[in-house]
Amino acid sequence: MSLSPIKLYTAPTPNGFKISVFLEVLGLEYDTQVIDISKNESKEDWFVKLNPNGRIPTIVDPNFKNAPTEQGLVLSQTGAILQYLADTYDKEHKHSYPFGSAEYYKTLEYLIFQVSENGPIQGQANHFIIYAKEKVPYGVDRYTNDTKRIYGVYEDILSRNKENGSKFLVGDRYTVADFALYGWAYRLARIDIDIHDWPLLGQWFDQLSKLPGVEKGLQVPPSK
Amino acid sequence: MSLSPIKLYTAPTPNGFKISVFLEVLGLEYDTQVIDISKNESKEDWFVKLNPNGRIPTIVDPNFKNAPTEQGLVLSQTGAILQYLADTYDKEHKHSYPFGSAEYYKTLEYLIFQVSENGPIQGQANHFIIYAKEKVPYGVDRYTNDTKRIYGVYEDILSRNKENGSKFLVGDRYTVADFALYGWAYRLARIDIDIHDWPLLGQWFDQLSKLPGVEKGLQVPPSK
Repeated sequence: MSLSPIKLYTAPTPNGFKISVFLEVLGLEYDTQVIDISKNESKEDWFVKLNPNGRIPTIVDPNFKNAPTEQGLVLSQTGAILQYLADTYDKEHKHSYPFGSAEYYKTLEYLIFQVSENGPIQGQANHFIIYAKEKVPYGVDRYTNDTKRIYGVYEDILSRNKENGSKFLVGDRYTVADFALYGWAYRLARIDIDIHDWPLLGQWFDQLSKLPGVEKGLQVPPSK
Repeated sequence: MSLSPIKLYTAPTPNGFKISVFLEVLGLEYDTQVIDISKNESKEDWFVKLNPNGRIPTIVDPNFKNAPTEQGLVLSQTGAILQYLADTYDKEHKHSYPFGSAEYYKTLEYLIFQVSENGPIQGQANHFIIYAKEKVPYGVDRYTNDTKRIYGVYEDILSRNKENGSKFLVGDRYTVADFALYGWAYRLARIDIDIHDWPLLGQWFDQLSKLPGVEKGLQVPPSK
């Protein structure tokens, strides 16, 4: 069965990259619509209708059967989008595990660790270091330190997995847990932290960077 | 088939309440072990072996078939635990939707909105208002305002759903999206915000509070 392209509303941010990278890795067709977050386009009425939270990325999948809207399934939140894409389009489980398996839920655990700690905390570090109009040393220190702690947790996970011969966050393959982290690891240099400060994470990052589709996904949307 | 009790490592926090409330609502047997986070017990070696991130809640389900460890399936991150419990123990879909349905993924979207925005941002508000050893007005304002914005998004979701005759976050029943939010809504008063400032959310909160099991779940672990 041939699929219609998935619609992707995105911007060149860590959360945007997560989805474009994973779409490329899965080899799915998609049409990109750039949302200019510098102009608050994601807070405009037409977009908030798609995502009440007014943030990219959002997808619309016209291939979804019995979709609740005419356009298809409208979905936001990177954690939900990644899990949906894996469940739906990775039937051979190259980058996922069967629903209900222990690995399925460990993948979900680390996916949610990424979206609930790594992303939000590194996002706050970005805010206080790059964007805040006021210098707030307390905020810079708090979120820089916690960002580093969190990458330390990932290093610990990779270290445990290495004992079982794995270089992945879960089991013997890259999953959405890895792709979610990759988007933020890719932008870690912006706050002068080098992912290679953690040896296993550094290797993980370099190897994942070479996976077919990853480089192309990082160019979405193309820079002006 | 009779089930062995699930082991729950928890503390009286919004994230802890999410799980004890949902276990009660599902009518599942569980044994509670209190983790004293004021003594950093969740950072002790034995606990970090269970959850590399060193945070409550964590569950161990001895009923899981082909579990990767002798004790059973070890799972952390409230989003993952709630989804696992719903997938596994709510076969009649009283508080969930069938895997693969549009409602399943909308539930996941709002569950992840809770764990990736509502929880982290309200958590930072708690930090700057209650726990920080330094007064940092920038932090207080930033996270108070964003917490309020996020509850406004929830009010908007409930307002749209009301047009379809629903008082729930997704469809015609309480799901893990609701139970996840409830844990944090319950503790909103600690930073002097009244959930009833948002009329639909206030009703949602009062009605969910009366659901059998909720009150009991909020007493776990019992106060000293």
